Amino acid sequence: MRITTVGLDADDTLWHNETLFRLTHARFLALLEPHADEAALQSRLAEAEQRNLRLYGYGVKGFTLSMIETAIEITHGDVPVRVIREILAAGREMLTEPVEPLPGVETALAQLSEKYRLVLITKGDLLHQEQKLAASGLGDLFAAVEIVSEKDRGAYERVFSRHGTGAAEAVMAGNSVKSDIIPALEAGAWAALIPYPLVWAHEAATAPKDHPRYRELASLADLPGWLDTLA
Amino acid sequence: MRITTVGLDADDTLWHNETLFRLTHARFLALLEPHADEAALQSRLAEAEQRNLRLYGYGVKGFTLSMIETAIEITHGDVPVRVIREILAAGREMLTEPVEPLPGVETALAQLSEKYRLVLITKGDLLHQEQKLAASGLGDLFAAVEIVSEKDRGAYERVFSRHGTGAAEAVMAGNSVKSDIIPALEAGAWAALIPYPLVWAHEAATAPKDHPRYRELASLADLPGWLDTLA
Repeated sequence: MRITTVGLDADDTLWHNETLFRLTHARFLALLEPHADEAALQSRLAEAEQRNLRLYGYGVKGFTLSMIETAIEITHGDVPVRVIREILAAGREMLTEPVEPLPGVETALAQLSEKYRLVLITKGDLLHQEQKLAASGLGDLFAAVEIVSEKDRGAYERVFSRHGTGAAEAVMAGNSVKSDIIPALEAGAWAALIPYPLVWAHEAATAPKDHPRYRELASLADLPGWLDTLA
Repeated sequence: MRITTVGLDADDTLWHNETLFRLTHARFLALLEPHADEAALQSRLAEAEQRNLRLYGYGVKGFTLSMIETAIEITHGDVPVRVIREILAAGREMLTEPVEPLPGVETALAQLSEKYRLVLITKGDLLHQEQKLAASGLGDLFAAVEIVSEKDRGAYERVFSRHGTGAAEAVMAGNSVKSDIIPALEAGAWAALIPYPLVWAHEAATAPKDHPRYRELASLADLPGWLDTLA
């Protein structure tokens, strides 16, 4: 089997992301604690995020707008303006948070880049993803960066034809079964799940454990070894 | 001179955009009218937009967040929550506004697409730009779509090598001297300015009237003719 191209997810595969969302989420709950029931607040925010996804897409700006909307709606407009100001600040802080590669990522990417064309494939805010890649110091290891609005079968087909030799000679590695694994397999690529301790509710899905082109790995450090066994 | 590739800006070149921002801007002023001096409000919003550009990038979500921030700051937190709810609604409406190609655009693109590879090159929110292109019905005329975080010389060099035969055999057409003309000329491409009646303050710049590879056109309908004279 010939593999020429490795697609890599960014958030929660190369660096922490969901942790940061959870921390901001907790800060949001604490801010609203005097004004709204916690369980109701959680479900209203999840609903707003889901409802706004088709308008706002993925990323911090949309999340910030959904938090503000939820704070207003759940209090029937009685939320103190000070709380909205805090939500805005929390969003801005997420956008300026330092980016640290996860342990072992840098070495694994350096190894992979000697044999394969590396393509970063991620969704989220275009500018913010580019800034995180620059801040991570990993940018030079990638032959291409594709920020897409949705990770579906068509997106993987397009990206792997554009930057590689087609999906059949590519492997996608990431932490989301729904976004990184299933559509990449559908496109005809290989796929490696590298679980992150937290999964965003929207991304939850069951891994296709018996698929012949699928493997779950403990960390990105195991990817070069798996690819060697395929050769 | 051989031209193989035509880059086209989207907002205010293919369809109205600044008009929609101005309408929302007017709505924002009207909402805050009882709470803040209009001239001060205008300049505070412009400052917030400029300051947030490096964090939020271009597009409706960032504009919405800057309006909310300005409404809170200028009233020292005394803005009614109802006003913030209205700002959120105005932002959502911008994202769902119907998209109509400007007069003559469809015919001009159809003509151009027979001889040249058309590439849409735009900044803004990734998802929103894709949605506008889909809603415009113009998507099939383009060989490629590139949504970039900043339109600078490097972006044009990359895009015209990736999707064409290099910048020297490409022309960029758009309404912004700062974003569409100057950096495209710097990259070695030709450039056609197609003025739109309104220009965002951030994009104001002086046209390089005497540049040998530059031309100002009255409308996109004049682009095929100009390209014929170059051949």
